[in-house]
Amino acid sequence: MRAQIDSAGGLRHLVTLEGLSRETLLSLLDRAENYRRIPGQPAYEGRELAGVTVSNLFFEPSTRTRASFDLAARRLGAHVLNMDMQSSSRVKGETMLDTVYTLEAMNTDVFVIRDTEAGLPEFLIDHVAPHVSVISAGEAHCSHPTQGLLDVLTIRTHKRRFEGLKVVIVGDIRHSRVARSTAQALTTLGVTDLRLVGPESLLPDENEFRGAQRFTRIEDGLADADVVMMLRIQKERMAVDASLDDAAYFRDFGLTPARLRLAAPNAIVMHPGPMNRGIEIDSRVADGPQSVIREQVNNGVAVRMAVLAAIAATLTRHRLPL
Amino acid sequence: MRAQIDSAGGLRHLVTLEGLSRETLLSLLDRAENYRRIPGQPAYEGRELAGVTVSNLFFEPSTRTRASFDLAARRLGAHVLNMDMQSSSRVKGETMLDTVYTLEAMNTDVFVIRDTEAGLPEFLIDHVAPHVSVISAGEAHCSHPTQGLLDVLTIRTHKRRFEGLKVVIVGDIRHSRVARSTAQALTTLGVTDLRLVGPESLLPDENEFRGAQRFTRIEDGLADADVVMMLRIQKERMAVDASLDDAAYFRDFGLTPARLRLAAPNAIVMHPGPMNRGIEIDSRVADGPQSVIREQVNNGVAVRMAVLAAIAATLTRHRLPL
Amino acid sequence: MRAQIDSAGGLRHLVTLEGLSRETLLSLLDRAENYRRIPGQPAYEGRELAGVTVSNLFFEPSTRTRASFDLAARRLGAHVLNMDMQSSSRVKGETMLDTVYTLEAMNTDVFVIRDTEAGLPEFLIDHVAPHVSVISAGEAHCSHPTQGLLDVLTIRTHKRRFEGLKVVIVGDIRHSRVARSTAQALTTLGVTDLRLVGPESLLPDENEFRGAQRFTRIEDGLADADVVMMLRIQKERMAVDASLDDAAYFRDFGLTPARLRLAAPNAIVMHPGPMNRGIEIDSRVADGPQSVIREQVNNGVAVRMAVLAAIAATLTRHRLPL
Repeated sequence: MRAQIDSAGGLRHLVTLEGLSRETLLSLLDRAENYRRIPGQPAYEGRELAGVTVSNLFFEPSTRTRASFDLAARRLGAHVLNMDMQSSSRVKGETMLDTVYTLEAMNTDVFVIRDTEAGLPEFLIDHVAPHVSVISAGEAHCSHPTQGLLDVLTIRTHKRRFEGLKVVIVGDIRHSRVARSTAQALTTLGVTDLRLVGPESLLPDENEFRGAQRFTRIEDGLADADVVMMLRIQKERMAVDASLDDAAYFRDFGLTPARLRLAAPNAIVMHPGPMNRGIEIDSRVADGPQSVIREQVNNGVAVRMAVLAAIAATLTRHRLPL
Repeated sequence: MRAQIDSAGGLRHLVTLEGLSRETLLSLLDRAENYRRIPGQPAYEGRELAGVTVSNLFFEPSTRTRASFDLAARRLGAHVLNMDMQSSSRVKGETMLDTVYTLEAMNTDVFVIRDTEAGLPEFLIDHVAPHVSVISAGEAHCSHPTQGLLDVLTIRTHKRRFEGLKVVIVGDIRHSRVARSTAQALTTLGVTDLRLVGPESLLPDENEFRGAQRFTRIEDGLADADVVMMLRIQKERMAVDASLDDAAYFRDFGLTPARLRLAAPNAIVMHPGPMNRGIEIDSRVADGPQSVIREQVNNGVAVRMAVLAAIAATLTRHRLPL
Repeated sequence: MRAQIDSAGGLRHLVTLEGLSRETLLSLLDRAENYRRIPGQPAYEGRELAGVTVSNLFFEPSTRTRASFDLAARRLGAHVLNMDMQSSSRVKGETMLDTVYTLEAMNTDVFVIRDTEAGLPEFLIDHVAPHVSVISAGEAHCSHPTQGLLDVLTIRTHKRRFEGLKVVIVGDIRHSRVARSTAQALTTLGVTDLRLVGPESLLPDENEFRGAQRFTRIEDGLADADVVMMLRIQKERMAVDASLDDAAYFRDFGLTPARLRLAAPNAIVMHPGPMNRGIEIDSRVADGPQSVIREQVNNGVAVRMAVLAAIAATLTRHRLPL
């Protein structure tokens, strides 16, 4: 795969947080804070993407992530094309590439790609023109870099530091692109106490999440945690494992007020959404004072603006003259 | 339900015309006239909604109403998110609220809601943040406030007054949100001679439309009328009542040139669209000189601009500082 | 049909290239060159369509043509409504006209129409208001005028002249709106050596494409050609003619490197897309140095900007005063 960072140090593509430096991550978080407007404040409106065309290619439907990228791009002045790729049957690699080349020929500058299968974002990085960028908006179980960034931005806002933090992720770690991207960012930023909690069948392979501790009892993982990240449980997973029905999952892994009291008193509760209330999380926790779940959504737009703006700034160096 | 008007007298939400004062209605009509451009004139373009994000949540499909709101918002400079809610199965109340909170967290300022079931707009008014507004774009059989406003704007343009006007509404009054909202506006504005015409099974309960006269013979209702409002007959209604097949309905209640001659010589003919030509209305009437049906559509965009602009002006007082 | 050119010589509608003068065509090509930005250059952004509303009515799905018109209009400052007409069942003529009148009443200035059946664009020209324009984005097998324009623009860019050019079109000429529109433009611009190649069943009737030579052997048609235009073969056609299976078609009519060597050494290869690689064209040709296929896409946006801007300029003369 071609590098995500160009020779001048600018962000060219963003398909994984793996390998990105602490400085790159912090610079994106700082930029995102500049764009962040909490609900009730007028949204940031800028021209950083004026003249830029962003094509959203979503092979996997996602209302909320698409809306977040869409608003982020438009609030910075971009033209956005929303291509509904899932309505057509899965296209062959070659034909998909023709679609990409067609949109490139219409002066698309940035592709935002979401796919249930692995490999497409990296494949595109190797095939797009030198003046075109690729952003992953979710790739199979592998990677969801803007979600990872919004998670660490949310943590930084509340905890002001990463060193010494105790972070626990609960749920289907094995199949979670969110867990992978967020863990990569946390590790780069200095978190050393990372705990993974889930039923044995949903914990990752041993060679993944190096340095993290694994727990099959949520109570063990929650002890004194500063950050509690709950993952969405996929109904499909439950179908293949009878021990994972809704009630059993909530009994064993659901985040209740009682369990949350095992964490540090000022622990924050996170969830990437959409939530299954009453399955992985109790509504009293989801809507309680320690929940920062809606802040995550708010930070999501800010982070996507930051990534788009950083990439657009880099692209100006790769443009052809008029 | 929280008030639609805030303590400073500004429009905060619009989900029903019931209870709105004559002054509020007239102020919206005046504002709409300022935005109105007849076809052939360049459309009004303004910045009244600059920095405002409008999310259209249509749980009931409606191409024309959505297009009208969409253009109204964009011509005033808003960012518009069109969320296609009907493609997913009907979501549970709680999950729907999570969708709303997610869009709020993305700095949505105004929700435009359309739903086949009753209650959602009022429910949302009670749950959205203090800096967020709700507009109904059609709620079950109950309410369609912007349609009511565009109807009275159209009548005012042609008749210059409401006092002393004879207005007849023909069709399925019982299940019509249009009839309810328009009748509320007409009554508030001073119309005292309101007539409802339809087959017995499609007339409303006695405790609704207070003060209106009821007729089951269209000829009786049309006599000397200044305004004739035809409603769209729903095919679903006909299925349950054998007496309501297309031909029988047109024979008994269709507006023909001959019947229209029973009304006042300069009566105007209205229809909320889309029309069933040959069922509730004869094409010679729909396209005739007394028809103002296309003006209603034109006024619809102007009225929605007026409502959005009034709400945006109110919201500036409820915003948080930067 | 009403004239496509108004009394002052301005472009009013564009539904066919037939009958348009050489001067009109060249003026549109010149205008398009002004708008053209090759990939890597920042896209042209202008205000030529400020205050103009464009409604895309696509009765036939087309991701790429719709994206091309959408971007063309928005980059010139228009508001664009994308109406998804194919999701509803084919509507009756009368009701479709009500949809058009509704959008007119919302101040639509330009309709972009695509349809699998013949006749709709001309029908609309005869029914829209004097201040409204119609552009065809593809009409049955009859006409695809912006494709014709982008084809001749691509040829002019590479060949600098039309007189004396040898142009061959290969494929299902009989059912191709692209072939018809491009041939009309080429003939008007001075091409006299036009060759049509395809199996007997897919060649047009004798009274069409006057002056063109017909071949059933691709090798005969390719000899010394300056321009080789391949058409997309429709799978539906193959179903009705057993001799047209994929392999047989490629064997008899596929453009391979060996066959391309029969054309002039600097011949260009064109295809309207999307390509069936390995059926009508070999990937080594499609991606080879003589291919200008992606340039066609790039020129497509420029040509649509030119058409929209020319029509918008004409419409200002037909507008009503404020």
